[in-house]
Amino acid sequence: MSITQSLARFAAETRPDAMPAAARAVMQLSLIDWTACAIAGRQEPVSRILRDMVTEEGGAAQATVVGGGKVPARAAALANGTISHALDYDDTHFAHIGHPSVAVVSAALAVAERLGASGAEFQAACLIGVEAATRVGVWLGRDHYQGGFHQTGTAGAFGAALAAASLLGLDAAQCEMVLGLVATRASGLKSQFGTMGKPYNAGLAAANGVEAADLVARGFVANPQALEAAQGFGPTHMGENDPLALAGLGQVWMFEDVSHKFHVCCHGLHAALEALADLPPLRPENVTAIEVTTHPRWMTVCNQPAPMTGLGAKFSYTTVLAMALLGHDTARLDSYADAVCADPALQALRQKVRVRADEGVSETATKLRVQTRSGILEGSHDLIAPQDLQKRKAKVLRKAESLLGVERAKVVEELVGSYADAAELAAVLKG
Amino acid sequence: MSITQSLARFAAETRPDAMPAAARAVMQLSLIDWTACAIAGRQEPVSRILRDMVTEEGGAAQATVVGGGKVPARAAALANGTISHALDYDDTHFAHIGHPSVAVVSAALAVAERLGASGAEFQAACLIGVEAATRVGVWLGRDHYQGGFHQTGTAGAFGAALAAASLLGLDAAQCEMVLGLVATRASGLKSQFGTMGKPYNAGLAAANGVEAADLVARGFVANPQALEAAQGFGPTHMGENDPLALAGLGQVWMFEDVSHKFHVCCHGLHAALEALADLPPLRPENVTAIEVTTHPRWMTVCNQPAPMTGLGAKFSYTTVLAMALLGHDTARLDSYADAVCADPALQALRQKVRVRADEGVSETATKLRVQTRSGILEGSHDLIAPQDLQKRKAKVLRKAESLLGVERAKVVEELVGSYADAAELAAVLKG
Repeated sequence: MSITQSLARFAAETRPDAMPAAARAVMQLSLIDWTACAIAGRQEPVSRILRDMVTEEGGAAQATVVGGGKVPARAAALANGTISHALDYDDTHFAHIGHPSVAVVSAALAVAERLGASGAEFQAACLIGVEAATRVGVWLGRDHYQGGFHQTGTAGAFGAALAAASLLGLDAAQCEMVLGLVATRASGLKSQFGTMGKPYNAGLAAANGVEAADLVARGFVANPQALEAAQGFGPTHMGENDPLALAGLGQVWMFEDVSHKFHVCCHGLHAALEALADLPPLRPENVTAIEVTTHPRWMTVCNQPAPMTGLGAKFSYTTVLAMALLGHDTARLDSYADAVCADPALQALRQKVRVRADEGVSETATKLRVQTRSGILEGSHDLIAPQDLQKRKAKVLRKAESLLGVERAKVVEELVGSYADAAELAAVLKG
Repeated sequence: MSITQSLARFAAETRPDAMPAAARAVMQLSLIDWTACAIAGRQEPVSRILRDMVTEEGGAAQATVVGGGKVPARAAALANGTISHALDYDDTHFAHIGHPSVAVVSAALAVAERLGASGAEFQAACLIGVEAATRVGVWLGRDHYQGGFHQTGTAGAFGAALAAASLLGLDAAQCEMVLGLVATRASGLKSQFGTMGKPYNAGLAAANGVEAADLVARGFVANPQALEAAQGFGPTHMGENDPLALAGLGQVWMFEDVSHKFHVCCHGLHAALEALADLPPLRPENVTAIEVTTHPRWMTVCNQPAPMTGLGAKFSYTTVLAMALLGHDTARLDSYADAVCADPALQALRQKVRVRADEGVSETATKLRVQTRSGILEGSHDLIAPQDLQKRKAKVLRKAESLLGVERAKVVEELVGSYADAAELAAVLKG
């Protein structure tokens, strides 16, 4: 079977009760995380621009725009995909090489709200979509990414399309058509990184997915092989055609390996902060020296020794470690402030941090060696190491609380955990 | 200057009075032709699907959908780009390697109607757009096309974006941003040929153009080099980077070489029909033999000797030449009927036609040798040979009359010729 046939069958025929509890639990973490990132990012400039555009276009009140009213589902998907990726704080899948939820959940929630879907239907469609996006991301592979494409936009569109198709109840043949159609629409360049174009790539993936599924539901006829055919999406977009992409589809849920970001700073700093959090509690006045050992690639990315701005702090091992020791919440947007950098206590503490590079440490890992008045503590963390689900859940909830406040985070957690109807979850997004 | 800088300056700074009369006249032919093709294609299945989708979404009544009501401009562009390409009967530019007007005019008319633009503004924006699309098509080149991309969708999006930007009055820096933004959105695969995906590629080009221009007008910041940058659209999409693409920009209007289709059949048959039309009038009963000499590539494409269906007739030298001799209008959709193939007079006549292949004849040319009771007539036609403007105009008008009826074609001709406001032209599309 081709990848299209396999994914189409997977989308059309996987019943919610065949989805393992672990995969469903991770999906719920990503739903809480997606909701928190979307609401927290709703006033970013790119979020306002997209929301204003779709709001002024108006139309049938089908689906909620984050921070706004209701618009047609296709438009809501465009806006919400962009808004939820505006802070670049949403989930990441290292094998997918991208951000699965911003594309897939934005599409699924818009269609689910329009259809009045139950929470069970909505969450099952999300899981179908993120798993399919991950598989397509693996299939396109590192060549596709290094060549210049942004899997969040490209692979994301295929996942978003199948999530929407699942909610629409399309059969396997129709799902093949959906994949074939979205193949001519999927796009997203990495050369937009550092601009509003990056979150927009997530938005267009979501909108393309909704559009393709809706058109096929209306009878649109496309080339159902256009993902893998000789001049299909993969071959024309430097796809690797990695056969591992389909390994165990339906049994193994690759999406479970998704990572959540717990700090609003450069990804290169996260392992150091996690390693610190895993140590016994430290009093800053007892710390005499900290040695950070990290992969050489980060030395030119996030090793500013003494930044004086909040933005600079996001790219500084010395600063974020000192912030964490002094009790600043590195998961909060407003912790990275100029005033924090100006604090003499922080400046004194970060002078005790030394950063060294070591090829022997992987890109996703960091080692810490902390000297205190009472002895030496050592620790390390690797972002891709499997983590205990309860621990992950506690961290995701703490992040949601940092972004939304305790009360609102609780509401989101309960809605997701109790499989509340899509419309109920969407109502939280209004802002 | 990069291609982005050159095209952005061209779009922002070319005043309508600097556009030569010949280019403006050809644009008017394409506007008449586009309008006729759009109205004639409005009941095709793919047209109904797109129109239904955007109509049910609804929203601000900004722009007319062909055969329907008014919707937001971005949605109208999506539907109308698709509808106007549904019959595959619209204009073709051999250097662009695609269909410039379906993407550009659909975008420009939607934005012009929304803004209440004058006919002069609208037509100038169209000309900016089709010229830019042609230049980008040349720049992407044959490698891009042979590699699997459909310039109608890809190059078309850049032209559509600049047409919309021109109407919005964006300056050169903003036009660069528009090109950089649409670079992450432009798409279109040739593997959709033979399905509804082909006309849809034109629709998405139009919609992508409107979306990019609108977003930049609202302050969106993208990478303004994303067309030609190291991992920009060209390098990631097998672009040839042909430097001839910018030759004489602003002085030479490459768009003037656009071709219009005058027969609703395979493009491989057009040169033969044109060659026949250029001969003195022939009475079918006087014809004893016809010899057609054409390029070998067409022998497997459109050389069905004795088809019995209207669809088969569209791929048959013998049939279309006999149809033309018997007075059937090969520009009309309903001329290609099963009943015509069943006519004994036609069957007798097409038996007198012999088709031979010759490598020495170019792909765009055909030679005819007609033996009659009173002697031998010889003629030939090449579709890319320059043509007299008045002759082109007469043919376009005759085609419009075939598609729309004499009265309606006259209205369209007068609206375009008198530079009527965009809203007036759009009103004709309602159907």
